[in-house]
Order: sequence, then C-alpha cells, then structure tokens
Amino acid sequence: MGIAKKPKVAVGQAGGPTAVINASLLGFIDAIKADYRVYGIVNAFQGLAQDRMIEIDEAVYGKLDLYRHLPGAVLGSGRWAMTKDDYLAAVENLKRHDIHHVVLIGGNGTMLACRELSRTAAECGYELAVIGIPKTVDNDLMETDHTPGYGSAARYVASSVRDIGEDLKSMKNFEKVRIIETMGRNVGWLTAASMLLKESEEQPPHLICIPERPFVLDRFLQDVEEIVKQIGYALVVISEGVRDRSGRVLSQLTLHPETSGTVLGGASRFLAEKVSRELSLPSRAELLGMNQRCFNALVSDVDRKEAEAIGREAAALLRNGEGERMVTLVREDRGSGAYRCRFGSCSLDAVAGKERLLPRDAVSECGTYISPAFKAWLRPLVGHDLKPFPDWDFAAKVLLRKGDQIR
Amino acid sequence: MGIAKKPKVAVGQAGGPTAVINASLLGFIDAIKADYRVYGIVNAFQGLAQDRMIEIDEAVYGKLDLYRHLPGAVLGSGRWAMTKDDYLAAVENLKRHDIHHVVLIGGNGTMLACRELSRTAAECGYELAVIGIPKTVDNDLMETDHTPGYGSAARYVASSVRDIGEDLKSMKNFEKVRIIETMGRNVGWLTAASMLLKESEEQPPHLICIPERPFVLDRFLQDVEEIVKQIGYALVVISEGVRDRSGRVLSQLTLHPETSGTVLGGASRFLAEKVSRELSLPSRAELLGMNQRCFNALVSDVDRKEAEAIGREAAALLRNGEGERMVTLVREDRGSGAYRCRFGSCSLDAVAGKERLLPRDAVSECGTYISPAFKAWLRPLVGHDLKPFPDWDFAAKVLLRKGDQIR
Repeated sequence: MGIAKKPKVAVGQAGGPTAVINASLLGFIDAIKADYRVYGIVNAFQGLAQDRMIEIDEAVYGKLDLYRHLPGAVLGSGRWAMTKDDYLAAVENLKRHDIHHVVLIGGNGTMLACRELSRTAAECGYELAVIGIPKTVDNDLMETDHTPGYGSAARYVASSVRDIGEDLKSMKNFEKVRIIETMGRNVGWLTAASMLLKESEEQPPHLICIPERPFVLDRFLQDVEEIVKQIGYALVVISEGVRDRSGRVLSQLTLHPETSGTVLGGASRFLAEKVSRELSLPSRAELLGMNQRCFNALVSDVDRKEAEAIGREAAALLRNGEGERMVTLVREDRGSGAYRCRFGSCSLDAVAGKERLLPRDAVSECGTYISPAFKAWLRPLVGHDLKPFPDWDFAAKVLLRKGDQIR
Repeated sequence: MGIAKKPKVAVGQAGGPTAVINASLLGFIDAIKADYRVYGIVNAFQGLAQDRMIEIDEAVYGKLDLYRHLPGAVLGSGRWAMTKDDYLAAVENLKRHDIHHVVLIGGNGTMLACRELSRTAAECGYELAVIGIPKTVDNDLMETDHTPGYGSAARYVASSVRDIGEDLKSMKNFEKVRIIETMGRNVGWLTAASMLLKESEEQPPHLICIPERPFVLDRFLQDVEEIVKQIGYALVVISEGVRDRSGRVLSQLTLHPETSGTVLGGASRFLAEKVSRELSLPSRAELLGMNQRCFNALVSDVDRKEAEAIGREAAALLRNGEGERMVTLVREDRGSGAYRCRFGSCSLDAVAGKERLLPRDAVSECGTYISPAFKAWLRPLVGHDLKPFPDWDFAAKVLLRKGDQIR
C-alpha cells in the first residue's frame, strides 16, 4: 500500500462571532486533521474570494487550540456581500489549490452563500462539497432545534436581566423604569430568554417586546404606566429590532457614514426618552451589547460541548461524501425529562436565507410572561445552575406598616 | 443579674447598590444581633427622615439572609438630598424610637450625610453614634485602600473588555473602532482596571481616557487614527465622566425631565460618532452599564469576603462605643507578595464629600498602559483566576503570506 496524498479542506468562520464558535472550529479540525490537510480561511467568504488562507499545520493548530474555549472567531470573521464574480474567484482559488471541500461556520446568510458557492462550483464543473456548521446567538436558523451560540447568549441575557432587576428593585423609589435592549434583528429568542428566571408577576422583567409582534407605542406606554402603578417599578426588555406596523425599526445607528453601514441599537434609548417625557417617570436605557455574544465567564456548558461536537459531526458528514448540507441538532426529549439532543443534517436549501421566528405561543399576547413549554425547552440550553432570585420585597413590607410606631 | 433591655441600632443602605452591599449588611447584622435590636431603614436617609423602618426580627433576618450574596440593596436604597429639616426629623424619629446607634453603608455622599446627622443629633443634645461602612464601585473614598464593591466591578470591567477585545479583533477587517464606556463620574479607577489583562501593546484595550485628565478631542482622534494604522483596529475605554479642559462632560442623559434628574452616559456614543465622521472609520459605542455594579456571576471572592467582614468590623466599632467613624481597609502587602489587608477606621470628616482620584502614575501619560504597581495593587482585588487571553493573530499571519501560493 502506498501513502495516499491527503485531500484538502478549507474551513472558515463567518458573521458575528459567538462565545463558542472557536469550539466548533477546533472540534472540526480535531476530527478531520488525521486524514485531510486543513486550511484556515481568513475572513470567511472574503478570504475565499481573495485567496487568503493558511495551512493549519501542527504549529498553527497548537496556537488555535489555545482559543478553543475563548470568544471571537480566531480565523478572523467576515461580512462580505459576495458578487457572482467573487464566487467565481473563490472557485478559481479553490481549484488552483486543489481543495474540494469547504466548511463554513455561520448563520442563515452564510448558509445562503454556501449554497451559492456550491452551485457556482457545479456550474464551473468543479467538484466541491460544501458543509455548513450552524452558529448564531440569534437562534434563527430553520431545521435545527437550536443553534450553537444561542445557549450562552441566552444565559448572559437571563443572568444580566435577573441582576439588573434586583438592582432596579432596590432603587424603585427614585428610578422607575429601565428598558433593556437585547440582540435580535428579526427574532425575539434572546428577549424571551430574559424571562427564564422570572417566577411571579411581581418579579422582573415585567414586559418584553419582540420583533415578531408589531410595536405600538401608545399601547407600550399604557402598559408601562400600569405596571409601575401595580408593582412600583417596571423592567422592560426589548429586541433591538422591534418595529411598528409599517415595519420601521425604532432606532438605527450609523456605523460608518461613508459606506452607510448601519447597525441596530438605540431602540431602548428612544423608548426610555418617551417614557420620561410622556409618563414623567424616571427611566433609563440599557443595551446588553457585545457581551451577549462573547462573555467568556458565563458560557453555557451544554452550548460549549455541543458547539465542539457539531464541528466533529461536520467532519463525519464530509468523510461520508456529503455536500450542500448543514449539520443540525435534533431534540429528542421534547423539552421534558432529561435533556437529549442528537445530530442530523439538512440541505442548505432548507435554511439558506430563511429565518426561524419565535413560536407564537412562546410569549403571552400581553408580553408579560413566557410559556412553561418554552421555559422547559430553554432551561437545559442555559444550564440548570443559573437560579432565580428569591422574590421578597423588604420595602413593600414597610409600606404596609407605614405610620406604625416601633415599639 | 436582670435581663438588660437590649439597645437598638438602625442600619441602612445608600446610593447606587453594588454586587456585595448585601454582604456588608448581613455581616453587620450577624455580628450585632445577639446584643442589639436591629432596625432596617428603608431607602436610607429618606427612610430616616420619613420614619420608615422595620425591626429585623428572626423572621425578617431569615428573609434578608437569602440576599446575602445577591446584588442590589435589599433594604431599598436611597438618594435623597437631605435638608436641615430632614436631619432634624431624622433625629426626632430616632429619639422617639430610642435608637442611639445608626449604621449607614454608602459612598462619600453618604459619609457626608452621616456626619451631618451626627452633628444635628449633637445640636439637639441627643446621644447618637453614627458609623459608616464604605461601599462604592467607584473606589473614590479617601482613607481606605479600596472600597467594597470596587473589586467585583473591576472584575466585570476587566473581563468584559478582554472578551469584547477578542470579539473586535475577529472583526477588524470590517469594524475598526469600539469605544467602551465605564462608570466613573470623577475618577478613572474602573477604566484603569480595563487594562489589567493587557499584556502587550497590540493587545486591547489600546487607549483609556479618565476624568482625572482633561479630554482633548483632536488629540483623541489622532491617537485613535494612529492606533488603527499600527494595529489594525482600536479598542478604547473611557470613563462616563471624561471632560474637557473647561470641565464640561461629553454627554449627559436626562433621566427625568420634570425633576431635571440627569445621569452620565453617552460619552462613548458621542465619540464613536466623531470617529465615524471625522476619521471615516466604522466605529461602535458600548456602555458596560448597570452590570458593573450588579453582575452576580462574576463577583470577586476577595471583595465578597471583605464586604461581609467590614460589616462585622462596624459592629465591633459600635460595641466599643465609637461614633462619627468609617471603617477602612488598610493594605499591608503594598501590592506585592501575598495579599493582606486589615481593618482600621477614620473620622467621617476625613472622607465626607471628598474624592480619591486615581494616582497620577497609575496610567501612562499617553493613556496606553497602566503601571505595574497599579496592576499589582489591583490583581488580588479582582482575583488571580481571571486570566489574560493569549495574544496571537491568525489574520495578521496570513497578511505576511498574502499572494503566496499554497503548495
């Protein structure tokens, strides 16, 4: 038997990083490197189009391995609007290097680009297998029970909102309303997670607003006023992408005026100003920001393990000769009993550019609670160790006794 | 021997809560409750003036104890501009209840109010011992090596900035500048802490701006431009209270238009917009927000223990018949070797309304690094378990090989 020349595979990380995207990368490399020469693509599709790759030899692997449990995308992430010419250039580059396998870790935009790359290769008569590994804190990919990255982000959100709620409760006699903004351009998965540790009507957060439901300002102000009247303060959580009936988002920030790059963010500030002005209630905005996708100290254990395992699963698909597929997570416990998930796969077509909305019944119509089924589904992804706080109000007790004489 | 009637003590929590202020409260109660009847003051000075107290009997203590390691101020915090009449009313209320001891947990504003309360009582010929327990994430109290609450806040800041830095590094080919804003109206202690885990010039954060140094916009923009040129991206951390030579802060948000209540916040957004517009660099603002003072999952162990112990120490002072004193922490290791701190005390006069600035030599003139002495001083307060990330740049490696042909 002669020594067969190892086939080559290129792997990249696309879109906004997560706290566990490097775990997926290392999981994949671990499982494939004995039999394939592995190339890291810098800046994902941009790197493919511009031919920016490095061989991941043992020395490079040793460095990458240090990042296995760290946030960020160690290969360098990419956000690049691929043109037809870019796809053709990517195929040309792969061809020149004799790379017939590409693996990209990303969200629904990445899966769309993966499909286009695969089709462009087919048009060029170049044999190319493209495998997608899901990743996004937004949890908006079809076909998979959830996406790696979401569990850790949801954990950060649930934990932060619990803590900020306790902080606000302490100050409710001089600060009445806080509006916390989470990531979520089109979906409310993270916002809904903010209610995971809420156990009673009095406990914060008291109201959530998600992009799946049209935002009505008057109704919102009425709700906030009513909550403050009933409970003494209001903690509200909104998705950055909440929008009115006409589909207009509440706030958009300019990232770069020259390229007119914009990011969402600032809806909470817009609403806090409205509450201050219209209701005359002291109100403050709070953006949970980038920590949602990179906070290392609060990574979910299940999320980290699954992210790594899903990378290994992508290697298994690749060995089996599959292409134009994305690895999926298939929930087997249906949100009750011991958590169990297995791997599956779907065609890139089934996920490319599509968005999975939060199920209608996960959040009550009034936005004041989440369903027990959603809580049960979410709990293992976030971790059972994250506990609700006790729900006791010292200040409320004294109100009952106000005017009493201390003996 | 007859059973002596127990003397009474009232305890309250003032100002912005911290992640460990409840530990100080419980530490105090634990150490005093066998010999004193303890009353909890709701909303600190406001509660004293308005006679809002509850006896902390065993049932109430049982509830409070659940909050020992939780953020927020379980008694209900207060921010109340005390008038002379308020102080007189407070003394009247204490007199009526025959309470001759008051303990307040708070910052320099609280210590000022403690001193006034003590003096008003003296003017009224009412015997009253007032003891202050330091608390503030700002670390701006004189006489004490540091303040309980700061270590945990510094830990949150150092950890967040490390993680957000890694996230930005991943994206540096399409997002160049992030400006992170920390708490700190007049002092840069938290902002300086953001550099604790920085080990090389390349590693973020690359620049910090503190209120102790006049902020010069042109110089700032030049610095940011230069950093981006040299390193490829820039992570900047600023205190919310940075101000120009005339003492004007960069941004102030209205919390409540009717009472013209304002809070700082938004300097980062102001600067991110400047960077976008003037330098044409994609730039984003990030406020670390309330999590700095309430994030439960990242409380510093040393901070939690000291917060509890300083409460017990206040009980010891009180038993010794002291009044008009604040408990202090006295550092004995001088920032080298094994961490060692003992308790001391100082007069309220020495801290009342005064602010302890960051030492001039803690931050380099250019704002690009902190001194080894400051790092050594800070490290045990934050915890040795929080590690820097390795400083390796996959994307930078490929730039060296750009145009190379992969074999």
